[in-house]
Amino acid sequence: MTVEELAKGIREGRRRTLAKAITLVESNRQSDHKKAIQLLDQLKGEKDTIRVGISGVPGVGKSTFIEAFGNLLIEQGHKVAVLAVDPSSPATGGSILGDKTRMETLSSKEEAFIRPSPTSGTLGGVAKRTRESMLLCEAAGYDIILVETVGVGQSEFEVASMVDCFMVLMLPGAGDSLQGIKRGIMEITDVLVINKADGDQEKLAERTITEYKNAFHLVAAKYESNPVQFFMVSSIHEKGISDVWEGIHQFTYKLKEEGIFQSNRKNQQLNWFKRLTEDEVLNNLWTFPENKKRAEELIAKIEQGELTPSAASVKMIELFNNKGN
Amino acid sequence: MTVEELAKGIREGRRRTLAKAITLVESNRQSDHKKAIQLLDQLKGEKDTIRVGISGVPGVGKSTFIEAFGNLLIEQGHKVAVLAVDPSSPATGGSILGDKTRMETLSSKEEAFIRPSPTSGTLGGVAKRTRESMLLCEAAGYDIILVETVGVGQSEFEVASMVDCFMVLMLPGAGDSLQGIKRGIMEITDVLVINKADGDQEKLAERTITEYKNAFHLVAAKYESNPVQFFMVSSIHEKGISDVWEGIHQFTYKLKEEGIFQSNRKNQQLNWFKRLTEDEVLNNLWTFPENKKRAEELIAKIEQGELTPSAASVKMIELFNNKGN
Repeated sequence: MTVEELAKGIREGRRRTLAKAITLVESNRQSDHKKAIQLLDQLKGEKDTIRVGISGVPGVGKSTFIEAFGNLLIEQGHKVAVLAVDPSSPATGGSILGDKTRMETLSSKEEAFIRPSPTSGTLGGVAKRTRESMLLCEAAGYDIILVETVGVGQSEFEVASMVDCFMVLMLPGAGDSLQGIKRGIMEITDVLVINKADGDQEKLAERTITEYKNAFHLVAAKYESNPVQFFMVSSIHEKGISDVWEGIHQFTYKLKEEGIFQSNRKNQQLNWFKRLTEDEVLNNLWTFPENKKRAEELIAKIEQGELTPSAASVKMIELFNNKGN
Repeated sequence: MTVEELAKGIREGRRRTLAKAITLVESNRQSDHKKAIQLLDQLKGEKDTIRVGISGVPGVGKSTFIEAFGNLLIEQGHKVAVLAVDPSSPATGGSILGDKTRMETLSSKEEAFIRPSPTSGTLGGVAKRTRESMLLCEAAGYDIILVETVGVGQSEFEVASMVDCFMVLMLPGAGDSLQGIKRGIMEITDVLVINKADGDQEKLAERTITEYKNAFHLVAAKYESNPVQFFMVSSIHEKGISDVWEGIHQFTYKLKEEGIFQSNRKNQQLNWFKRLTEDEVLNNLWTFPENKKRAEELIAKIEQGELTPSAASVKMIELFNNKGN
């Protein structure tokens, strides 16, 4: 398919074309990469959409939540795309989006588009592709994009940097040392949802919310006028799900009124440009064969105490500047 | 003074030579930069020292604490150097270490060396210089280095990346929304000290510690076997200061037993090499005149919706690679 055909199919909302285009974006081939950039270029332009990041450790019930949440959104007339940033490989048992069957009722709907995580690549690469896939989904008419991630490495921060609203799912029982919030997650959270608040767990969920409220109170606010929202839900009983959507809706509405929504998106675009560029430059710095060899020699000398980091850095820069890469 | 003379004077523990060498390290002149690297090279080699980062907002009583803490260390036979990473300029009224007079008794002692923050430069630059100044102080026989910082921008993270133990000073009254812990600070904290726990404030300080203990409990531990330590002190009454030192001593002892202390230092060295190199490369990427001009054009096109971030990035990389910078 030509770039023009892909663009046309996507604009017409064809799911199979969208899937093909995402495969193009995910490809590692140089020629595909060029085509992908052309395609994105043809489809560019802001759409009226809401991008929601959804994070939580395995076992927290993300799939069940997303299924209930997505079905609700579709009932209300939205079109929903679910994408994933998942740096964990299937080999290590970490992959969260290996198949669509885990969201059976949602994936069977015409108004839903579910795309598993690319199965290989570095986190930065996976995140970049998810970002581009998100733009393709928006061009195909999906107006609510859910970007799912598992709490591995930097993945939450990657996701937070590409969405309008970042949600964290937790289990009842926050005080357990098993469930520590990872570095800096509190500061990127807009909505905290305690899932599985059903049966015996309901009381515990209430205590958990109180604990998190206290903890969040100690952290500097992300938005002065838009404090973190806390919800208790039972995804399997579809309880509390509409409150979460109401909360996100209000949240984005307020951000739009204040112009923060728009400036966030603009900054995300500029940061993305910078990030793509810097990633490529630094990647060249450390992986071009000659550079890599030199870096290894220099690091060995630092470890043996033969060179200070400053002196080694000067030597590394000399090579990089001379080589023109 | 030649590099050899500077190195000799520092090895002999001469304070005036040390001060001169730090001025050299802080200089922006290219020739001084080369000399500084040679000097660091002559003085290289691990010393048996402890590096402690001390952070806290203005008004928390850092100077009074450091004075009491430094005097105690000297009584116990140590030599103490106090350095600062302070990205705030005196012009904006933010500088915390403008003069030595705020630590009168400490600065008058032969066993103490107090160096105010360099008054200009980017945070990265200031931090780099503080790091190099730290090495000079160690070469001059100072075995405890206190690196002070005010809670501005990324300064705490810079300091945490160059020390063995990171301490945060807080005031009684944690629940006040005025005193939110900044992004990610909890995760880099090894020791939390509530200062000004005297008179009426003592009870409040106790409650504050409990609140922080609960909050820290929700955050993933930095070291499994070495949990965050909490102390209440009154710096003006010199109460509780020796407990803090005892705590830090135990903390670093445990880290050494487990080999973590040594691997942290090694990683800090390697990260420093990478950081210095990447900073320089990225600095060239965005500030070399031709690059800067191109970046501005591309950003304008992104803002006008004429270019996607991906397409703009490809153009930026082309220029950078062709120019050999």
